[in-house]
Amino acid sequence: MNTAMAEELRREVPARIERFKASLRASGVDGALLLHGIDLLYFSGTRQNGALWIPAGGEPALFVRKSVSRARAESPLPGVRPFPPGRELSSLMARCPRIGVCYDVTRISQLEWWRKHLPGHEFPDVSASVRELRSRKSPAELEVMRHGGRALSAAIAAIPSFLRAGMREIDVAAEIELRLRRAGNEGSPRLRAANMELFTGLVVSGEAAAEPGAFDGPVVGRGLSVASPVGPSERVIGVGDPVLVDYTAVFGGYILDMARVFVVGTLDAELGRALEVAIAIQDDIAPRLVPGEVAADLYDRAADRAEAEGLGAYFMGAGDDASRFVAHGIGMELDELPVLAPGFTDALLEGQVVALEPKFVFPGRGAVGVENTWAVTRAGGERLTPLPDGLVRIHP
Amino acid sequence: MNTAMAEELRREVPARIERFKASLRASGVDGALLLHGIDLLYFSGTRQNGALWIPAGGEPALFVRKSVSRARAESPLPGVRPFPPGRELSSLMARCPRIGVCYDVTRISQLEWWRKHLPGHEFPDVSASVRELRSRKSPAELEVMRHGGRALSAAIAAIPSFLRAGMREIDVAAEIELRLRRAGNEGSPRLRAANMELFTGLVVSGEAAAEPGAFDGPVVGRGLSVASPVGPSERVIGVGDPVLVDYTAVFGGYILDMARVFVVGTLDAELGRALEVAIAIQDDIAPRLVPGEVAADLYDRAADRAEAEGLGAYFMGAGDDASRFVAHGIGMELDELPVLAPGFTDALLEGQVVALEPKFVFPGRGAVGVENTWAVTRAGGERLTPLPDGLVRIHP
Repeated sequence: MNTAMAEELRREVPARIERFKASLRASGVDGALLLHGIDLLYFSGTRQNGALWIPAGGEPALFVRKSVSRARAESPLPGVRPFPPGRELSSLMARCPRIGVCYDVTRISQLEWWRKHLPGHEFPDVSASVRELRSRKSPAELEVMRHGGRALSAAIAAIPSFLRAGMREIDVAAEIELRLRRAGNEGSPRLRAANMELFTGLVVSGEAAAEPGAFDGPVVGRGLSVASPVGPSERVIGVGDPVLVDYTAVFGGYILDMARVFVVGTLDAELGRALEVAIAIQDDIAPRLVPGEVAADLYDRAADRAEAEGLGAYFMGAGDDASRFVAHGIGMELDELPVLAPGFTDALLEGQVVALEPKFVFPGRGAVGVENTWAVTRAGGERLTPLPDGLVRIHP
Repeated sequence: MNTAMAEELRREVPARIERFKASLRASGVDGALLLHGIDLLYFSGTRQNGALWIPAGGEPALFVRKSVSRARAESPLPGVRPFPPGRELSSLMARCPRIGVCYDVTRISQLEWWRKHLPGHEFPDVSASVRELRSRKSPAELEVMRHGGRALSAAIAAIPSFLRAGMREIDVAAEIELRLRRAGNEGSPRLRAANMELFTGLVVSGEAAAEPGAFDGPVVGRGLSVASPVGPSERVIGVGDPVLVDYTAVFGGYILDMARVFVVGTLDAELGRALEVAIAIQDDIAPRLVPGEVAADLYDRAADRAEAEGLGAYFMGAGDDASRFVAHGIGMELDELPVLAPGFTDALLEGQVVALEPKFVFPGRGAVGVENTWAVTRAGGERLTPLPDGLVRIHP
């Protein structure tokens, strides 16, 4: 991400705050305390540690624990002060009996601290409002994501230059991660849900790709130990093994997510056909990523197609461990809104971004599928991860 | 980590639960609901997602959301059931009016869910008890950490083979991370504190190493963007620049942490002397890592020595952003107990493990120091990261 892109993002902070204030007023909340680092980054322009106070009517104040000097240099907000707030707190918040916090990410101990310092106040949940506002990306955010998508695609495109039979999954992962870091990958994708973790991505092959696990996706992988049961393992990749490479990368704080299937030699015909169906499902859904389409309807459309092709039993995982979604919102967190899944009856909004990932899991055999990151536009999904979708065959 | 080590850890699960039950009884709590993935791993032997119910008297039950089959295969506990718990819940918990949860890691939304399903119960905080129990490592845990310490040390020892002037900090980081992954590094160090993040480690040089930031350590680094303001940046390393390499690695779920200073050419004399003082402070504290020593006293001893050497203004950071600790507990999380810091008046316990990291930060010039991971033993600190401590000079 270059300096001009960063400056564009920084300039949006006041407008983001105004939209949030309007949302607070609409829901009868007098102000909000944002304590989650990523929400704070979105609404203040700095990822330093502290608390961002946004009154429904009035000026925001950013209280910073560490580092005040860096927060002052980075944030366009004028009111950056040291944490904890002193006497000023009572005057700032006294006329605000109802102070919103995000129940989904705030720890009990954090809320207890604020309850003690603001006795008599109510603390309603405002996480739905924050998540909804963050789901719509601005042109500046989309530009950063386009940049990230090109960089991630380039790293995935390089895989045939080093993937060979006899390498362990973890060796392939190490090579991908090396190239991503050199390209400026900032680290792990942030996840909003409690207890969700992903280091960077999956290189999973053969039966190890089909092992179920805690990670909230269709494919999990064996991982390296019971303590880290997701992603690449020490399994040696053999000729003919389906290898699913599903990677994230972070640029300017924005995550991209994509997956491709590789094989050294020839892929089993049934898995090859399943991959073609996955791509067909993607190609059917992508043009429908337009404002007004209902998320749950698009999921049904994908699931119906899988069923019609005789692959329903493998769609998005197998058995009790199958996932019930086909796309997830993505931005500064990997699990944003919208979700293309049953029950999500809201219409898509312009500027939302989703990782669409139709996949099939065959227990004991492997996993195949495709994933790309798409922006919702009036002309249909805009692909942010430019790379051909099909099977990549490597000569043995 | 090999299979025998993993089996040793698994065998400890019942004894860990018994110690926790005794601690619950001692504090008048009837049972505990553990919802944090890492606590669940420690007390159940699996890192699948769910809730672990441990009654002060009676059998534990592990309710798993995903994946039940994997949790059953991994955990030695007999009571693995699907989440959410059904009717059985009332019978399990009805006679337990006071149910402990960890306030420090549990989200408000998680507690709300349990409050709704267990009306009329009280939910006191048991995080102190969990943290204290986890701080003492068993011989099996220490064996896993010795293995990890050797692997991390080998990766740091390889740095002179590739570090050259003209490389960017991120290029050096990419090479270290490549070698760590090949050696089996499982991912990012888990952090218990809210909003703390570290991808893997720091490669920070010259003035970029001295920039303050949110990360709760003496050295933070510039990072790659305002969204990721910690660790390596795109700064090009020049001849004579102090390069602080501070890395973590995770093996079998256990984190190791170490730091060394490198220079291409010759290091500035004042910074070179500060590094020698840091090593002298380490060598003074390490033999005192014995049961009974008071954590805060050891911090004072280190800070006094820095002051006496005329380096007090640079010790553990500069100005308002200086840290007030010299060692942190480490294990399955990077911020465990004990902390060698003011206010920590508890005595050290046998089997605790700390990362001891005396460092000096010179604004505009750079950061130097040393870090190793040590186990508290009756014979003094046992070094788990075997590698010489001194400055590593690379021919320009």
